[in-house]
Amino acid sequence: MRTLSGVQSSGKLHIGNYYGAIRQFVQLQDESEAYYFIANLHALTTVRDPKLALELTREAAVAYLALGVDPKKAVLFRQSDVREVLELYWILGTVVPHSNLERAHSYKEKVAKGISPDFGLFAYPVLMAADILLYSADAVPVGKDQIQHVEFARDWAVKFNTEYVPGYDPADPEGKERGHAPGLLKLPSARIQESTQTVPGVDGKKMSKSYGNTIELFADEKEIKKRIMSIKTDSTPVDAPKPVPTGKPEDTSIASEVPLYDLLKLLLPESEFKDVDASWRAGGKGYGDYKKKLLEAYHATFGPARQRHAELVNDPAELERILKDGADRARAEATRLMDKIRRAVGIP
Amino acid sequence: MRTLSGVQSSGKLHIGNYYGAIRQFVQLQDESEAYYFIANLHALTTVRDPKLALELTREAAVAYLALGVDPKKAVLFRQSDVREVLELYWILGTVVPHSNLERAHSYKEKVAKGISPDFGLFAYPVLMAADILLYSADAVPVGKDQIQHVEFARDWAVKFNTEYVPGYDPADPEGKERGHAPGLLKLPSARIQESTQTVPGVDGKKMSKSYGNTIELFADEKEIKKRIMSIKTDSTPVDAPKPVPTGKPEDTSIASEVPLYDLLKLLLPESEFKDVDASWRAGGKGYGDYKKKLLEAYHATFGPARQRHAELVNDPAELERILKDGADRARAEATRLMDKIRRAVGIP
Repeated sequence: MRTLSGVQSSGKLHIGNYYGAIRQFVQLQDESEAYYFIANLHALTTVRDPKLALELTREAAVAYLALGVDPKKAVLFRQSDVREVLELYWILGTVVPHSNLERAHSYKEKVAKGISPDFGLFAYPVLMAADILLYSADAVPVGKDQIQHVEFARDWAVKFNTEYVPGYDPADPEGKERGHAPGLLKLPSARIQESTQTVPGVDGKKMSKSYGNTIELFADEKEIKKRIMSIKTDSTPVDAPKPVPTGKPEDTSIASEVPLYDLLKLLLPESEFKDVDASWRAGGKGYGDYKKKLLEAYHATFGPARQRHAELVNDPAELERILKDGADRARAEATRLMDKIRRAVGIP
Repeated sequence: MRTLSGVQSSGKLHIGNYYGAIRQFVQLQDESEAYYFIANLHALTTVRDPKLALELTREAAVAYLALGVDPKKAVLFRQSDVREVLELYWILGTVVPHSNLERAHSYKEKVAKGISPDFGLFAYPVLMAADILLYSADAVPVGKDQIQHVEFARDWAVKFNTEYVPGYDPADPEGKERGHAPGLLKLPSARIQESTQTVPGVDGKKMSKSYGNTIELFADEKEIKKRIMSIKTDSTPVDAPKPVPTGKPEDTSIASEVPLYDLLKLLLPESEFKDVDASWRAGGKGYGDYKKKLLEAYHATFGPARQRHAELVNDPAELERILKDGADRARAEATRLMDKIRRAVGIP
């Protein structure tokens, strides 16, 4: 089975990103033939600064590699390095009903907010479908808000195959029955990521860059320490038992009433957390001690990734070698399909 | 000065196409550095048959070469052979306001007719702008109904330059003043083709494939003769003076009340037409004689082009050589610009 995921860095990844999404993505390489692309063409719809665009592309690659993407297992590449995707984007677009794009969630949201969208935003589900279809992905891991993209890719693959593959029967897309032909474009499935863990930020709200409450993955040690030490706590005395989160805060904007407790639970191995939980409920230790414990847990968890990250940042040639190798492997796949697509539509 | 024209064959070119458009296009190669591309990517929005798509592409190239495009002067190439255009299509699209495309004539017309358009139709002004801008064309010869496309290309070039070229001032697009930088995308001008001659078909209506009243450029001799002999005439006797067109027929669906007369005027050299005109007004010759005269004039005018057409049809290797050479020259130009564009937006 082949899976495909596009990743885009908005900079400054934090542990919420890791537990919410990245961890699952990285696991895919052990369960499937995983293709990871850095969606730097998509990023152009929002990033208008070339230095930042390059930096975010590099940062996304470095982060995924540091966090466990193994280029020996997975194919990691930059979207822009396989130009065939833009050819498929155009060709596929000629069978895409305009009305589908008008009901794309991302577009409708912008319009509802009164934002006047650029063509790139309107068009990007078509590019996304081309990304998926170009590599004949079987499954695309997505959050619930992204299911529509995979459905579009399926619908349009069916439309293309129906239009251009003689003997194709939408009811038998793999052409298993006599007289039927398999489609040129493989129908992908959405693999819905179970609603992933919501990680609380230092203020108890959901950890998010926009709230300024993150604990970053790759900031320097001093900054990390400062953030962890700033986690919001109440004034329970050292000796007293500490309050435990109910799990269902009244204020729904709050992800955790006791973020320090939930972060310890998240980052500590189960056995270690058991002890922490017992002392937390018994009292006798101050929040400062627990924060130190969390800092240790943070470094135990992310130390190796942080080291690998630092190495890769300092070895751009190695990063480039990895990305070039990934692009070559992805392109080989893309070229094979595009030769067939061109023949099917009548491009010399 | 560089000019650029896209050509698309809908098959079976006729003399109305020649006098209405092709002749002027071909003349461009003597007045400018002319780029002619066969718009076979655009054609995918309407042609869904690969054999036909290939045939129309070939036919457009053969026809333009036969009718005078000189590959030593002009750059003739297939749109799909220079893939950089699709990269620019995506990048440019990220600065194109979606609302512009909603007011594109071609799209509005389809919607007004109740046709539910495909994305390709909606998007094609962006591809067309990329075609124009990729080759830094100064001027694009267009009919009045196409001016909007060039205006879009200008507007979007300004938007791109403003967004991505430091020091660019829209009021000084060539960066002539101190401290200003020239735009990366050159602003093209529409070169409006004066309302070209309307050529009457064999029935007197405007010559058009859809009326079935054409005299083709490259049909076989027998067919041409049959068509010319079928030109609609009245029952004026041989000896009597023949009626001359008023130039302003009451029935506005009629391009000429006396198509035979107007076609003779169009195809004969001026001096020869003088004699024909005199005898036509004097009487003494039958319509059959004039039709033979027109047939001779047709062969005198298009004989060399028809021969060259036949040669090229029988020499696909030579055609391929010409198109490959054109593509190489166009690609060299495209690559130079795209390197700069990638650097400007931050694509490695």
